[in-house]
Amino acid sequence: MRFHGYFRSSSAYRCRIAFNLKGIETEFVSIHLRKDGGQQKTPGYRALNPQALVPALEEGDFRLTQSLAIIEWLDEVKPGPKLLPEEAGLRAQVRAFAQVIACDVHPLQNLRVLDYLKAEFGADQAALDAWCGRWITDGLASCEALLSARAPSEFCFGDTPSLADICLVPQVFSAARFGVDLGAMPGVRAIAARCEALPAFAVAHPKNQPDWEA
Amino acid sequence: MRFHGYFRSSSAYRCRIAFNLKGIETEFVSIHLRKDGGQQKTPGYRALNPQALVPALEEGDFRLTQSLAIIEWLDEVKPGPKLLPEEAGLRAQVRAFAQVIACDVHPLQNLRVLDYLKAEFGADQAALDAWCGRWITDGLASCEALLSARAPSEFCFGDTPSLADICLVPQVFSAARFGVDLGAMPGVRAIAARCEALPAFAVAHPKNQPDWEA
Repeated sequence: MRFHGYFRSSSAYRCRIAFNLKGIETEFVSIHLRKDGGQQKTPGYRALNPQALVPALEEGDFRLTQSLAIIEWLDEVKPGPKLLPEEAGLRAQVRAFAQVIACDVHPLQNLRVLDYLKAEFGADQAALDAWCGRWITDGLASCEALLSARAPSEFCFGDTPSLADICLVPQVFSAARFGVDLGAMPGVRAIAARCEALPAFAVAHPKNQPDWEA
Repeated sequence: MRFHGYFRSSSAYRCRIAFNLKGIETEFVSIHLRKDGGQQKTPGYRALNPQALVPALEEGDFRLTQSLAIIEWLDEVKPGPKLLPEEAGLRAQVRAFAQVIACDVHPLQNLRVLDYLKAEFGADQAALDAWCGRWITDGLASCEALLSARAPSEFCFGDTPSLADICLVPQVFSAARFGVDLGAMPGVRAIAARCEALPAFAVAHPKNQPDWEA
């Protein structure tokens, strides 16, 4: 299985955590989003992912994009611990939590969006930080509320990490990068810290990737 | 089952199509996003959906947010035609296609985002149309590429409508609203037209909702 990613991408980070939790080895292909005018924009990569975004997965002739689709597919066809709960109601809560982050936070702080804000609206770094801060704060505060409403558990929804935790940790990493204060979100912080202590999450951290740059 | 939505919301529109395809009756609660400073921001609604976004679903004590999570849950626990394919690889393609729209297009054109662009970057209507046009064009062009790469079928992925079609049609509606030219996307247009001719899609159209405003 070949995995095309970038160390800093939240979506790629999610997939790496899932690979590690399930014990899946992949061949990593670095797609540098800022080199060569963006390696994700080459015709070769666009043939794999017409969105010109990371990640993309290849296994034989099978090709798949979108991190949540990739992780659910892995969970359905590969061995290893389950990343989504068996019970339909709980599985739905896990998906909804993951989608708060994957739909309503992360796409707003993506590189192409920040580039647009700079080019078309003249946004400086302070304006970009405020923009990202608004959506990350809103999203993680919603995650905190969803955690407060569920039955208490070690991880987001249950006593093993799920797709919800897989989405949460990269978003918390990104919050730190944009200087977002998580002081009012003790549940989010506690679960992120518990996850980060696990090897599957630690090994997946951006700073532990071959393409890492400080 | 009570469904909290808004006629123009793409996310609510997706859920309505799914209800109709599966033959599920719901009690509709109108959450007007522009009245009373935004009815989605009241404490009562935030208790249902801490994101202060539509939609939200209630069935007894069970509460669920996020349209894709709602539709997958319906598909798993309710009778009616299946909205995701049985085969794991095809199901993954359907999810990825849906997520192109639900993650990387629709959240960027959401009301709260457009309000931010107006307030913080002084965006006028032309700037908002250009912003929405960029992400809708990018996203639907990616959908067109994904359709070109799959085995030909009546609908996005197969001969019955799936979650992919459910996401496509509201996005095509929204493209028209923002004046996006779909001339280069014949596959997208053909499938959207085929869907719109079905009663389940037609009845779900924003103009057929009790809270519709021209």
